[in-house]
Amino acid sequence: MLVTLPPDCGESDCDEMREQLEVLGLHTRLMRAGRGWTVVCYGDPDLFARVKQFTFPAGAIVTAVPQPYVLCARACAPDRAMIVPGPRPITLGDGGIALAGGPCSVEGLQMLRESAAAVIAAGGTMLRGGAFKPRTSPYAFAGLGAAALEMLGEVRRETGLAIVTEVLDARQIDAMIPHVDVFQVGARNMQNFSLLAELGRIRRPVLLKRGASATIEELLLSAEHILSRGNTDVILCERGVRAHETLTRNTLDIGAVAVLKQETHLPVFVDPSHAAGRADLVAAHALAAVAAGCDGLLVEVHPRPGEALSDGKQSLTPDAFIDLAAQLRSIAAALGRTSAPAAHQPAQRVA
Amino acid sequence: MLVTLPPDCGESDCDEMREQLEVLGLHTRLMRAGRGWTVVCYGDPDLFARVKQFTFPAGAIVTAVPQPYVLCARACAPDRAMIVPGPRPITLGDGGIALAGGPCSVEGLQMLRESAAAVIAAGGTMLRGGAFKPRTSPYAFAGLGAAALEMLGEVRRETGLAIVTEVLDARQIDAMIPHVDVFQVGARNMQNFSLLAELGRIRRPVLLKRGASATIEELLLSAEHILSRGNTDVILCERGVRAHETLTRNTLDIGAVAVLKQETHLPVFVDPSHAAGRADLVAAHALAAVAAGCDGLLVEVHPRPGEALSDGKQSLTPDAFIDLAAQLRSIAAALGRTSAPAAHQPAQRVA
Amino acid sequence: MLVTLPPDCGESDCDEMREQLEVLGLHTRLMRAGRGWTVVCYGDPDLFARVKQFTFPAGAIVTAVPQPYVLCARACAPDRAMIVPGPRPITLGDGGIALAGGPCSVEGLQMLRESAAAVIAAGGTMLRGGAFKPRTSPYAFAGLGAAALEMLGEVRRETGLAIVTEVLDARQIDAMIPHVDVFQVGARNMQNFSLLAELGRIRRPVLLKRGASATIEELLLSAEHILSRGNTDVILCERGVRAHETLTRNTLDIGAVAVLKQETHLPVFVDPSHAAGRADLVAAHALAAVAAGCDGLLVEVHPRPGEALSDGKQSLTPDAFIDLAAQLRSIAAALGRTSAPAAHQPAQRVA
Amino acid sequence: MLVTLPPDCGESDCDEMREQLEVLGLHTRLMRAGRGWTVVCYGDPDLFARVKQFTFPAGAIVTAVPQPYVLCARACAPDRAMIVPGPRPITLGDGGIALAGGPCSVEGLQMLRESAAAVIAAGGTMLRGGAFKPRTSPYAFAGLGAAALEMLGEVRRETGLAIVTEVLDARQIDAMIPHVDVFQVGARNMQNFSLLAELGRIRRPVLLKRGASATIEELLLSAEHILSRGNTDVILCERGVRAHETLTRNTLDIGAVAVLKQETHLPVFVDPSHAAGRADLVAAHALAAVAAGCDGLLVEVHPRPGEALSDGKQSLTPDAFIDLAAQLRSIAAALGRTSAPAAHQPAQRVA
Repeated sequence: MLVTLPPDCGESDCDEMREQLEVLGLHTRLMRAGRGWTVVCYGDPDLFARVKQFTFPAGAIVTAVPQPYVLCARACAPDRAMIVPGPRPITLGDGGIALAGGPCSVEGLQMLRESAAAVIAAGGTMLRGGAFKPRTSPYAFAGLGAAALEMLGEVRRETGLAIVTEVLDARQIDAMIPHVDVFQVGARNMQNFSLLAELGRIRRPVLLKRGASATIEELLLSAEHILSRGNTDVILCERGVRAHETLTRNTLDIGAVAVLKQETHLPVFVDPSHAAGRADLVAAHALAAVAAGCDGLLVEVHPRPGEALSDGKQSLTPDAFIDLAAQLRSIAAALGRTSAPAAHQPAQRVA
Repeated sequence: MLVTLPPDCGESDCDEMREQLEVLGLHTRLMRAGRGWTVVCYGDPDLFARVKQFTFPAGAIVTAVPQPYVLCARACAPDRAMIVPGPRPITLGDGGIALAGGPCSVEGLQMLRESAAAVIAAGGTMLRGGAFKPRTSPYAFAGLGAAALEMLGEVRRETGLAIVTEVLDARQIDAMIPHVDVFQVGARNMQNFSLLAELGRIRRPVLLKRGASATIEELLLSAEHILSRGNTDVILCERGVRAHETLTRNTLDIGAVAVLKQETHLPVFVDPSHAAGRADLVAAHALAAVAAGCDGLLVEVHPRPGEALSDGKQSLTPDAFIDLAAQLRSIAAALGRTSAPAAHQPAQRVA
Repeated sequence: MLVTLPPDCGESDCDEMREQLEVLGLHTRLMRAGRGWTVVCYGDPDLFARVKQFTFPAGAIVTAVPQPYVLCARACAPDRAMIVPGPRPITLGDGGIALAGGPCSVEGLQMLRESAAAVIAAGGTMLRGGAFKPRTSPYAFAGLGAAALEMLGEVRRETGLAIVTEVLDARQIDAMIPHVDVFQVGARNMQNFSLLAELGRIRRPVLLKRGASATIEELLLSAEHILSRGNTDVILCERGVRAHETLTRNTLDIGAVAVLKQETHLPVFVDPSHAAGRADLVAAHALAAVAAGCDGLLVEVHPRPGEALSDGKQSLTPDAFIDLAAQLRSIAAALGRTSAPAAHQPAQRVA
Repeated sequence: MLVTLPPDCGESDCDEMREQLEVLGLHTRLMRAGRGWTVVCYGDPDLFARVKQFTFPAGAIVTAVPQPYVLCARACAPDRAMIVPGPRPITLGDGGIALAGGPCSVEGLQMLRESAAAVIAAGGTMLRGGAFKPRTSPYAFAGLGAAALEMLGEVRRETGLAIVTEVLDARQIDAMIPHVDVFQVGARNMQNFSLLAELGRIRRPVLLKRGASATIEELLLSAEHILSRGNTDVILCERGVRAHETLTRNTLDIGAVAVLKQETHLPVFVDPSHAAGRADLVAAHALAAVAAGCDGLLVEVHPRPGEALSDGKQSLTPDAFIDLAAQLRSIAAALGRTSAPAAHQPAQRVA
């Protein structure tokens, strides 16, 4: 529920109303709305019945939010863009298309530097790379862990790229904070509510991947788990659902991008690599994602895909990634969107 | 299996070889390949074992086709474009993007003329409209039947647009031939092999929609059912698969477009309307389809969607369709593809 | 909508009311209900709004049918059993469990006789076997056609077993009538409404398989397509849906059996063979189906599965089928259901 | 890989071989095999290539395990039963059918005692009830937490029933240990590998639910995550997959039960409540599960389903649960399986 107060109401009027709503068991947030204020009220849907007896200040406009999520509903913050406060702040959701690239796993400092160079050459601003890898089999390579975090931090300092990496366990957060700009939650943990709650308590953007059989509504409710704990910055990421087709790894739900752009103010990314499952199909997926309106892409790039310890089959070479970025810029321009920058001045040259 | 003969081999050499292969129970087709000939050999996979003892002419290059389909495999006709021989022949699969629009059902002559005018204004070349409608419920409106065919024929004469309409039963084909340029097979009939066999015997393009839970391979094998009977012209159409998401009507398998463009020489269309299920989501689906590489779009357009007897919710207004077409042309240009024509001179003005 | 008239109302009262309803565009059927009559009224849901102004005879009880199907709704015929009028009439849906077995395809008279002997030895009453086979690939064995029909007719005469075989095309019906007791519609044709309409005009039971991605409601509406044309006898058949699992051929929707038994008066069969896809998993599927409440089973049985021209991998040997039947009888007895007969005296001995 | 040594080889021979295999990077376990020993060797599949140069003791029989899981493969422990070491040890996987019942959430001590009484009256041996509830919405009731653990412990002492409850976070384990006999991992956490690893380090059975879109192989690999850390006791639980049907909550994959019984020595449970989603469909699902061969059932039972704070719609009343148990015993007996006990003497009477 949103209560927009007349411009002559001040913060103290809001505070009074918030207090009364909170006595009912609901939660509230205060937002600027033009020259006045909006109180966002959220919580257990059953409690809203009690609001009916409530008297709102004269002139207040009360808007119900029909969806089961409130804080991530578009109505709650219609024009909001998000800042990733990395070494160089990046704005998401302002019409531009952010580009994140990098290897599935961080396999060493040299390959990470080469990947970062590819990202920069492609005009990207974020470097992805797994330190802790969730693997279907307990016998598969599970990432370099803390050592990988150090390497990510090192390349972050060298290049100014923002670091996106996956968190598997709340107990990893503290060690990640110094090196990581965006905490990625993988598809398999989209409903690990315990982890989401912890990520709701930090002040760092979370990139939340959609589970392989999650509905769009479930994805938004998982984002709401984070937002309702206080963290305001969640990036949603469509990466394909598990349908019956086997020639692609997952079935990219391109319609979900369109639905999300209507439902929420949160930025929407797409991971074309995990959908395609094959490098030769990544570009078509990525171009389609931009045409459908996504705010950013998360692409697997490896200097030598044939040698990758994981996901090599679906990783682009640096050259293929740079070519793809040029095509993305063309499409973005054709759609009247701010294109990602064609060139990027790194903080410091990589080898 | 493809057998490409040296340029000095003539048709008679081919005939001899074909005869021998056909004695084994296999089927053959003769194709031009540069200055020489290629014999395409297809049929029961088990029979190919017998080919091992076969002696091919000196210099012949024998290429196995690993897929279970042969005639629609890309290797079989790598650069082939298809001509829709309507009132004005339309080339498909040459890099351009063909645009087909029109109502779910033909509801009357006037609304069909208005729909045709919208298609022309959008730069489209094909008019879609159902005469025979497959309906989940036996109590729902099932189309105007023969009367609708007459209306389609009438508007075809007036506008020069090619007519795309669905066939449900082999016994409808004869009555359709005079009015229809492209015979559409709906998703529910994709494996109606009896109907496919009959459509394989006519000489008119068939637009074959992918079944809601069909694999890409099954779609191609259904196309092969048509091709193997002699009809060389099949247009494939992705229209969304049935996955678990309910906010869209179907889940558009954008990756299937990319896979099909690699697997087959047949043109690939996308129906964004049945995937989206809501008019406000159609444009994002259509733009994504073009970005992913499709050769054409089949879009539901109705002069007054709110009054439509079927699928009104997902039908675009003429204005929305014209806007969409402009965006599609921008994206096509950005990708270096021949854009669909911006204007189109109709054979005769519509009201 | 069901209108149950007081016992003192006669057929002429019914006729009058039916006439008035039909003037509105609705359809009606007359059913015995205890000592009185019920008029079943069905048709375009939009027309029912007009019924509101209607005055029903005093004492009439009007029951709305909330589902989009009416004739197959359980309320329409709560205790109905169905008779398969074969050489020896078989009652379905009376608590007993009917057993149909036989090969995927009729491959010859001898193997068909052996299959029939297995069915009889197992206590079954129906012989299944394909004459016309829908095959994903146009190059696969598609059945012996008319010759197979003759063989089925021959074994029918010899054994008294009812014949279940698939129809692919309305034009096959006439040739099938003399030899076939139950017309099977395969999963791929569940929404071939043109075929369903023709089967609605014959007076022979139709076994309608659920499509691989059809909902339960869609299955019932397809049955309604048949029932609304006049044929009163449809057997529904669950055979597995296409989900993501690949170790079984399809995912048997055991819950659908339970839902169907509540929703409809039509008998519900299960095909465990196409769900399992492997002979060693068929028994578990079949036992589960009986435990969940199905009225009959359709099982693939082949005298020598290793030599089968189709579906050999999932076909039971005669011995395995006989063992399975014994287990089924145990479970049926444990659930207080009439077990299928342990022995069956054939009309005439098979070789 | 399994290496079965001749009976005359002693533990020291095994130790020597294990040491050599472990030098290669592989892991080993020692198992009794008749009068001799088997060494189970597992780990990174790539390392097994190195085993080829290995010389095994004379008479050793080396068996490859083709599946990607080893410790849970049936070949690894073909006849193993599992003991749940609760207040009264329960044997699983010995042919009997274990019955666990109880509320979705522990809502209070009184309702938990009533639920326990229903379990006992039904012949069950385990009480389920959630203390920590994963909820799609952050605003829904999430369980009573630590207070619920105390109540579970209390009823455990009173009744001797083993307690099954869900763990969401590794940090909850210590507080759960005193009160919990079986740690349940929910479908949403099936691939929370961090949690699985921690559960692999305790010595308490884990009931691992299959994820809504997990394959059978992925379920077994998740079990392997636990087993490979040292915990030998995992119970697998099928609870329905997310397919397209909406009349049931999930689609129970009854075939998975059959496949699992072939693939693994681990006991297989079924949760009919989350599959059915409606109380009136639970019995059919449960009966089917037993017929398909499951080793136990996990059923939601609530003394007053209409008042339940979660999952009331799918919860059985005590009476319905007791009726169901009687039917289950009949089916178990019909299949020649040890039925669950008809009566059970509690350690202490419940109110």
